[in-house]
Amino acid sequence: MSRMMRAVRAGKGVVEMAVPSPEPGQVLVRTRAFGVNRPELLQHEGGYPVRPDQTDVLGLELAGVAEQSGEEVCALVGGGAYAEYCITDERLTLPIPFQGDDRFVRAAALPETTFTVWKNLFWDGPDTLKGKSVFVQAGASGIGTTAIAMAKAFGASRVTTTARDDERCKFCTDVVGADVCYNYNTEEWEKEEKADVILDMVGGSYLPRHLKMMQQGARLVILGFLGSPVTEKLNMTRVLLKNLTITGSVLRSAPDSEKARICEELKRHVWPRLASGEIALPHISHTFEGIDAYADAFEDMNNSKHKGKMVLRL
Amino acid sequence: MSRMMRAVRAGKGVVEMAVPSPEPGQVLVRTRAFGVNRPELLQHEGGYPVRPDQTDVLGLELAGVAEQSGEEVCALVGGGAYAEYCITDERLTLPIPFQGDDRFVRAAALPETTFTVWKNLFWDGPDTLKGKSVFVQAGASGIGTTAIAMAKAFGASRVTTTARDDERCKFCTDVVGADVCYNYNTEEWEKEEKADVILDMVGGSYLPRHLKMMQQGARLVILGFLGSPVTEKLNMTRVLLKNLTITGSVLRSAPDSEKARICEELKRHVWPRLASGEIALPHISHTFEGIDAYADAFEDMNNSKHKGKMVLRL
Repeated sequence: MSRMMRAVRAGKGVVEMAVPSPEPGQVLVRTRAFGVNRPELLQHEGGYPVRPDQTDVLGLELAGVAEQSGEEVCALVGGGAYAEYCITDERLTLPIPFQGDDRFVRAAALPETTFTVWKNLFWDGPDTLKGKSVFVQAGASGIGTTAIAMAKAFGASRVTTTARDDERCKFCTDVVGADVCYNYNTEEWEKEEKADVILDMVGGSYLPRHLKMMQQGARLVILGFLGSPVTEKLNMTRVLLKNLTITGSVLRSAPDSEKARICEELKRHVWPRLASGEIALPHISHTFEGIDAYADAFEDMNNSKHKGKMVLRL
Repeated sequence: MSRMMRAVRAGKGVVEMAVPSPEPGQVLVRTRAFGVNRPELLQHEGGYPVRPDQTDVLGLELAGVAEQSGEEVCALVGGGAYAEYCITDERLTLPIPFQGDDRFVRAAALPETTFTVWKNLFWDGPDTLKGKSVFVQAGASGIGTTAIAMAKAFGASRVTTTARDDERCKFCTDVVGADVCYNYNTEEWEKEEKADVILDMVGGSYLPRHLKMMQQGARLVILGFLGSPVTEKLNMTRVLLKNLTITGSVLRSAPDSEKARICEELKRHVWPRLASGEIALPHISHTFEGIDAYADAFEDMNNSKHKGKMVLRL
């Protein structure tokens, strides 16, 4: 008889189901904590299509104990983290870089943001941002805090960002380490800053403003459309004259081979500096206890109460 | 007393002026032929701003004889080619890869298009296009013919293009070597083709159509706006979902160090294959005789009579 576990399925909530069985190259992990991200909320509400070969159990990142080896690990997964047990791909599984009782909670908040930031800001390896001016939208978000801290740690000459109120701006500069943070409700950041690299998750009306502030040879990376995917009237002249690059990606749909390469680079370049405390990540504003609390976490996320990451501990 | 020469100055026409003096790192070339390009026409009509440190003598490419060494050379220049003598940067000067009486005319038609195509299609070196599907707008133009021939020569699996009438389409396939050419006045190319790399010089309303036909990880390079630089209502969703890259550039404003790198790569990878005839370039439809004929060349260019390149022989 198969072992049973509790898990959160998209659109259904907490259910009892069989513990999944790992295949070669996979690791069965007893979940101790998982990160709570916006895509799960969207998926739970029916707005985020899942590939048919993927589980409908929510969750993209977790930390826990590998059943067979007893190793403590964290991992990026294509789904399945909101459960007492989760299958991970061993190529996307990393050691836990922290000590202490909160090590699972902290490690569970790493994979989604560190993979995303490495993929999109370090396209030429660890020296990509050296001496560059980097501008990050939504600096108080999980991606934002991670991008700011990693850009600073890997030699960006200036890291600037935006947030929605002065309290969050103070958090971005004083806690996360940005050089300047603009209140996007009151300040015209595109008139104040020039950037070599921009990380954006807003889209829409921000695109022409970004083109304006980009320097010769700059790159804009778009990760989402918290605003709208549609830009009315886009003039591309600056793209030619300044030799700009505009690109975008969704981590979840990247090929596993690319994710495995990112994982290797994180292990080599980022994990030792997380362990030493030199990179002070993650920033977690809310920790929830027990799998049933996922609904509270979603409610807080819907109300945008968090700063940095939210984690649920099992 | 300084030697005098005839030259074409922007907005002024043919004038007598002093032969310029080369500085260290420069070569004085006795011009035998120069390429006629649209930017010169625009510049002559006042529509193309020139950096204040550059000559207002027209012309971006030439072939001739180096005064001091007697070597036969061709070169990319920032201006000055429409003249009996021209100063070239020795880092942007190449040997003439051809034999025969028409070797100067043919070589004068190479620099602008080969530098542009190498910069924009071979960003990862000579294997960039290997196995890729490449779509080139305006295949009968100077850039178009060069892009098609070089993409085929460097291993693209499929090279498709567009032209404005059936006669030019036949030229693109039967003479230049494209696999398919769409008549852009009658055919919906974006419904027929998928592309990994697109080279565009139209912009405007083409941008959304290009995003539609781009495959996962594809790149769109924009070199000009023969249409308009403005796109009405651009939806960027495909950029994220397909991890697309949009970029653009103007060769003329690229740093000299980058042009020098491109020149080295052309010398190593392209010039030997031009010499052997393996890459059948350039395609020249009009040759003009004598510096006063520049006005006839501009008139034909204004009427878009040419296919491939126009060259003026001195």
